Amino acid sequence: MTWTLPEQRPGREAPPDLLERRALVGGGDDHQVVADGVTAEDTDVGGVACVVCSPASPARTLLYFHGGGYRLGTARGWCTFGSKLAAASAARVVLVDYSLAPEHPFPAALRDAITVYDAVYADGSAVYAGGDSAGGGLAAALAVACLQRGVAVPKGLVLISPWLDLTQTAATFESRAETDLLFSKESADTAADAYLQGHDPRDPLASPQFADVAGFPPTQLFAGGAETLLDDSLEFAARVARAGGAVELVVAPDQQHVYPYLAPDSDAGRAAYAAIVRFLDAG
Amino acid sequence: MTWTLPEQRPGREAPPDLLERRALVGGGDDHQVVADGVTAEDTDVGGVACVVCSPASPARTLLYFHGGGYRLGTARGWCTFGSKLAAASAARVVLVDYSLAPEHPFPAALRDAITVYDAVYADGSAVYAGGDSAGGGLAAALAVACLQRGVAVPKGLVLISPWLDLTQTAATFESRAETDLLFSKESADTAADAYLQGHDPRDPLASPQFADVAGFPPTQLFAGGAETLLDDSLEFAARVARAGGAVELVVAPDQQHVYPYLAPDSDAGRAAYAAIVRFLDAG
Repeated sequence: MTWTLPEQRPGREAPPDLLERRALVGGGDDHQVVADGVTAEDTDVGGVACVVCSPASPARTLLYFHGGGYRLGTARGWCTFGSKLAAASAARVVLVDYSLAPEHPFPAALRDAITVYDAVYADGSAVYAGGDSAGGGLAAALAVACLQRGVAVPKGLVLISPWLDLTQTAATFESRAETDLLFSKESADTAADAYLQGHDPRDPLASPQFADVAGFPPTQLFAGGAETLLDDSLEFAARVARAGGAVELVVAPDQQHVYPYLAPDSDAGRAAYAAIVRFLDAG
Repeated sequence: MTWTLPEQRPGREAPPDLLERRALVGGGDDHQVVADGVTAEDTDVGGVACVVCSPASPARTLLYFHGGGYRLGTARGWCTFGSKLAAASAARVVLVDYSLAPEHPFPAALRDAITVYDAVYADGSAVYAGGDSAGGGLAAALAVACLQRGVAVPKGLVLISPWLDLTQTAATFESRAETDLLFSKESADTAADAYLQGHDPRDPLASPQFADVAGFPPTQLFAGGAETLLDDSLEFAARVARAGGAVELVVAPDQQHVYPYLAPDSDAGRAAYAAIVRFLDAG
């Protein structure tokens, strides 16, 4: 039996407000600072655009999926973050420009993730996967797809405020509604609709929270105490641990969504950075 | 209103098999190795016997409560572990010889913990609390008591395979029954009975899993993937995080109960040790 992804469906046009937000977020692309000792290079991996941040002597590879609710964000826009990680950890960081919704609904992003993973894995590199927010969900979905396909899972997962359950039924969507400044239930519902376009939100390839995670690799999770996605991390950490996996969970009180990415110079951000480097370098 | 502990009730005699086990465990007391650069001294703190492991220039204090189901174990027997931590972290480690059950049922151990905490806190030292197994539960109960009393909580909690719920209803008592070599449900039930002697196991001062943990200090937890108490850690980590606390949770797959204490030279044990040192030194 050959495993296949669910069929790719046609998407729909991006609404004007999303195009505006993309332009705004994209405005940061040219202001990225590539860390000393690292080169950042635009590359094509099996048809998927990537930015590869390479330290002098890379010992492993981290595929990194940016956040943005599956509907915005770019690889180029994560260069400061990715290159800093590459500089500190001896990991080559491959920032993946996966297809965005609503033009490219589920499973387009996952298909791109699998394409890049397979190509890098074929190179013989030790491959980690990670991401923030939707990108964290995508990294976890990639691992779920590996299990389903019967191929090697990534060596480890680095999940920063991952969005793992696209039903938005977690209690912290209510309890953190007032404190989360970035990702409201309404915003999550809109993003989920753009990505799923009618597809079952409980499909484990869209919402890894519903996956059988037996065989999952070591999984590192970061969540902010103020964010609506706190429960996504708490529940997934427990899920992976109960299935026999290695888990490292950090909850930083009062911190916002994707704080290691957005506030890298805060105490919590620096601690998260150091933990990610340790996690990657332990492998 | 003055806060008081539940009244101390008379205990009962220790059964012969427990006396034998205490003697066996106590046999290790004379074989403890005090780490280089650390002095280990028998002291009396407010009537409670302690062994104080002091590095050359202690910057903070960790009150540490040994494991043994509230019914066995000694401060002296934890000297290798405690002095190694003192040597690596610049923390003075105070190993507490709290009263044991069944001769001294709940709340005797907690009363001793509070006595030592208050005395060390009055000294002006930054005080952390920690422990393994029942000792981890006791450290958490100490923090709960601080909240109830309206006094400062410890600066942080280091909980190694903490026993936090004396009802033994967690699912991992079943799912890990075959893999846990150290702490079966039967053993936990016996120990809980010796400690509680009819007291409500859902009293948050006996089972912190049932406590209101709003205001809890940063809490670091370690659990082995093979152990029955895995759920105690997973659920408590989520509880503290949802209440707004800082959490650091490590689950080491296939590891046994209190692995950082019992297997300090394994990869997982070394990683746990390093994480504890980082946690203490961050304060």
